[in-house]
Amino acid sequence: MAETRLGAHAYGKVGIRLAKVERAGDRHTFHDLTVQVRLEGDFAVAYTGADNSTSLPTDTMRSTAYVLAADLPLTETERYLEALGGRLLSVVPAATAAHTEAVVHGWDRLAVSGAPDGHPHAFRRGTADATASVTSRRDRPAEVRSGLTGLTLAKTTGSGFAGFLTDEFTVLPETGDRILATAVEAEWTWLRPPGSYAAARPVVQAAVEEVFATRYSPSVQSTLHAAGEAVLAAVPEIATVSFRLPNRHHIRVDLTPFGRAGEVFTVPDRPYGLIEGTVERA
Amino acid sequence: MAETRLGAHAYGKVGIRLAKVERAGDRHTFHDLTVQVRLEGDFAVAYTGADNSTSLPTDTMRSTAYVLAADLPLTETERYLEALGGRLLSVVPAATAAHTEAVVHGWDRLAVSGAPDGHPHAFRRGTADATASVTSRRDRPAEVRSGLTGLTLAKTTGSGFAGFLTDEFTVLPETGDRILATAVEAEWTWLRPPGSYAAARPVVQAAVEEVFATRYSPSVQSTLHAAGEAVLAAVPEIATVSFRLPNRHHIRVDLTPFGRAGEVFTVPDRPYGLIEGTVERA
Amino acid sequence: MAETRLGAHAYGKVGIRLAKVERAGDRHTFHDLTVQVRLEGDFAVAYTGADNSTSLPTDTMRSTAYVLAADLPLTETERYLEALGGRLLSVVPAATAAHTEAVVHGWDRLAVSGAPDGHPHAFRRGTADATASVTSRRDRPAEVRSGLTGLTLAKTTGSGFAGFLTDEFTVLPETGDRILATAVEAEWTWLRPPGSYAAARPVVQAAVEEVFATRYSPSVQSTLHAAGEAVLAAVPEIATVSFRLPNRHHIRVDLTPFGRAGEVFTVPDRPYGLIEGTVERA
Amino acid sequence: MAETRLGAHAYGKVGIRLAKVERAGDRHTFHDLTVQVRLEGDFAVAYTGADNSTSLPTDTMRSTAYVLAADLPLTETERYLEALGGRLLSVVPAATAAHTEAVVHGWDRLAVSGAPDGHPHAFRRGTADATASVTSRRDRPAEVRSGLTGLTLAKTTGSGFAGFLTDEFTVLPETGDRILATAVEAEWTWLRPPGSYAAARPVVQAAVEEVFATRYSPSVQSTLHAAGEAVLAAVPEIATVSFRLPNRHHIRVDLTPFGRAGEVFTVPDRPYGLIEGTVERA
Repeated sequence: MAETRLGAHAYGKVGIRLAKVERAGDRHTFHDLTVQVRLEGDFAVAYTGADNSTSLPTDTMRSTAYVLAADLPLTETERYLEALGGRLLSVVPAATAAHTEAVVHGWDRLAVSGAPDGHPHAFRRGTADATASVTSRRDRPAEVRSGLTGLTLAKTTGSGFAGFLTDEFTVLPETGDRILATAVEAEWTWLRPPGSYAAARPVVQAAVEEVFATRYSPSVQSTLHAAGEAVLAAVPEIATVSFRLPNRHHIRVDLTPFGRAGEVFTVPDRPYGLIEGTVERA
Repeated sequence: MAETRLGAHAYGKVGIRLAKVERAGDRHTFHDLTVQVRLEGDFAVAYTGADNSTSLPTDTMRSTAYVLAADLPLTETERYLEALGGRLLSVVPAATAAHTEAVVHGWDRLAVSGAPDGHPHAFRRGTADATASVTSRRDRPAEVRSGLTGLTLAKTTGSGFAGFLTDEFTVLPETGDRILATAVEAEWTWLRPPGSYAAARPVVQAAVEEVFATRYSPSVQSTLHAAGEAVLAAVPEIATVSFRLPNRHHIRVDLTPFGRAGEVFTVPDRPYGLIEGTVERA
Repeated sequence: MAETRLGAHAYGKVGIRLAKVERAGDRHTFHDLTVQVRLEGDFAVAYTGADNSTSLPTDTMRSTAYVLAADLPLTETERYLEALGGRLLSVVPAATAAHTEAVVHGWDRLAVSGAPDGHPHAFRRGTADATASVTSRRDRPAEVRSGLTGLTLAKTTGSGFAGFLTDEFTVLPETGDRILATAVEAEWTWLRPPGSYAAARPVVQAAVEEVFATRYSPSVQSTLHAAGEAVLAAVPEIATVSFRLPNRHHIRVDLTPFGRAGEVFTVPDRPYGLIEGTVERA
Repeated sequence: MAETRLGAHAYGKVGIRLAKVERAGDRHTFHDLTVQVRLEGDFAVAYTGADNSTSLPTDTMRSTAYVLAADLPLTETERYLEALGGRLLSVVPAATAAHTEAVVHGWDRLAVSGAPDGHPHAFRRGTADATASVTSRRDRPAEVRSGLTGLTLAKTTGSGFAGFLTDEFTVLPETGDRILATAVEAEWTWLRPPGSYAAARPVVQAAVEEVFATRYSPSVQSTLHAAGEAVLAAVPEIATVSFRLPNRHHIRVDLTPFGRAGEVFTVPDRPYGLIEGTVERA
């Protein structure tokens, strides 16, 4: 082997997905972050030998991110990151610098009837895209389908899942209060051409959002069906409406090993439930 | 070889990126679509032999999408797709069905001072994410950086690029009227901790949007600098502000071979210009 | 509300990441799958009412995928999916059809010295890309950096992590036998221009792969350093070599609630550890 | 406005997709790069004023990347980047540094019968993934489909497209020699269960690759059909085979404005043709 030495080195955790609900009475704040941590310092023994005694596991960095999210308000992200970096310096003697970063994913309160300041616990992220799809054949009218995609919604209460079928592989506990989050994909067909395809789309979206926000959800299936009924009620020219609703699970982090309560969630990218259904006029 | 026959088959074009500006006086509408086309029918000779006489090139499908976008209003996407499907059936005798689809990417008018109904030609898509970044070291204050990412903006006029350096590989024509589109990534440092990091962020965003919307852009560089000046003027605690601005090129489609004018653009994913710069207090 | 009825509907689980190690003496087989499940049938009560009694949770579908992966050989993916679909039909009376799908991610055995049939427990996926980076300045030689990216490696044993720093937020258990998987990103600088930049790249890759495959890894850090030493020994013109090694965690699924043992792992996309370091000539 | 000054700044072009064919008799080398360029220097007048006279357009950077790819061998990527950076410094007086980077996407020669050193002009990139899909119903055998996805293939000659249907929107020229590139997605059904599903997959892949490499392609459709026939001939238990073949267009860069010939191509991400078809036993 050549004569070598260890140069600059660092380690950390990337992509810590973290959500938190802060409740002020009935009015909730929903924080949705992706956090990363990177430690610089003298960790040479871990590199040049088999000595991990200077290395705090990156798994612990993740736990620390969750615990501090429970302990602190998250409105001022910078203060949370300062506390996170300070904590890591305090428990890792070899660290000379802690770099902490976050992307805070923006959510807006849903505007629904009777909630002048926005809904207390239902939110939308970003702008949905419109979709349209036409099948043209000779000597017959074109089949037109219209839709919405990427209508990203979340509610921090008013959702549960209980009374489900179980078998010996079922470990999921029942719940009467969970986060429900999805990205609505909707497509509808037409009884007859409407005055304006474009004008119907916000009516559909408003109907879906109203149901999502204001109705208790005993399952994604039930919310899907109620949203379909609302769409058919709102736009008389629509014949059928189909939904694909991914269930973007928010998993409550178990903070009891750390002596904390607090509504902190992790948000895995995969796997996710996918609920599909069509509601038609009878 | 085994005895075989051709079963179901189809072909088409996927991912046709298409933007269009419709001008009603000074007030512009900005359409931004991704279109796809799929033809079913009896194209067997192209598969089983070397006979392409039934196959309209997918390149022509793309041209057709552009030409019809020039010819038709795009507000009712479904009508545009009907026309596109009908056209393809009319020129492809072997086709029995044309499936046309579009995703319409949503843009909202910017809300800037003096434009009660939204800005006439400046738009935002979606919701920007907040970013924050902290470097903690022992025995010294943490370095805090705050930012925005994914602030996606477009304006359909009020932008040009001329008087640039040229060499023998330069073929870009000068222009005094082009689409300017970007996804702002901004990060700022602090002279001193503000009362609220979170409260400063919408002030920064509003300053950037105001400059983007209301000031003629002779280059991305110039817009970057003016936005930086506006940020420093708006938030006195900010020390420096850095931007990374991808130049999301909108390339005017040359419709003259088809006898059309019309402001139809294609939007390549890559390559793109990337303009960076920091503005500091003197 | 309009008179409506429920039409076609289905539900399931998408994106179940699943790895399995099958050991035949020292020679391991590494299976890496992404599975999805979709049930059709009469689940109307879940949609039209609040009655979940026909719905097996999608979380249970995931558990079932893991349990059957433990129970069955995975070489014939189709037989595993048949069993998975059959099982779900057997426990969900309302289901009329179960659609099960898998993508099997391909891994090749590493070719290292002394292993004529490929390494018994070290694998590579796909083809790495080469990278190059040059900084040119006036009146001085260009700075050249060469690299590799996307060199995706896994080993199913010969890796552990123990003796690490702990605090009260540490819950990670020590291990002497875990899966180690990463996508190597390497970049090196040059003492002097080599005869061929291109010819050096496979020498670097072989050195990295040899270390990865044949040396016990007490930490990612240690493997990084040993790989760096091997690179500097193998190519005398290289001055320094830097690595970024994401730790693609494979989490052993706890099958004890289901009365199974078996080495089944889940593979979260995020978060992941990221280990960086540079090795230089002394 | 506050008193400000311009700090660090830079600009350039990201994501320049570039392929090149180098012919040594019948044996071709296929280079596939993504290049980026970044200039540092004193470009202040472009930022603080409306003066673009120091700014070479990023569009010219792209042209320069193409022209130099035509002029130089690409085997030593580093030397190409040095030339690119040097050229940009020479024509941009304000630039003090040019950073040039490339990712070189790896392609391996196909191993087909009668080509002991690999095929002279047909290539594969990476490792295909296996797919499997099963529909289980009560009281009837499961329907099994097997497949391949991500089998990325290219050939640098032996492909053309001519004699096609035209209309007044057709501008595509006929060609008898073009690059053909695709990522094969194949799925097949079974007459009866084979001895091994897994063992059939490499037989299918080899049949597809042999057709792709050795048979002149008058269209993607024709290659699809011939590949289907070869699959049915190779595996007697297969009933039908369906393909989805994206046509990853390689567009020859017109270098005549720059006085160059040379086979340099650009590779747009979108749009792309998509050719589908099923071949069945008669």
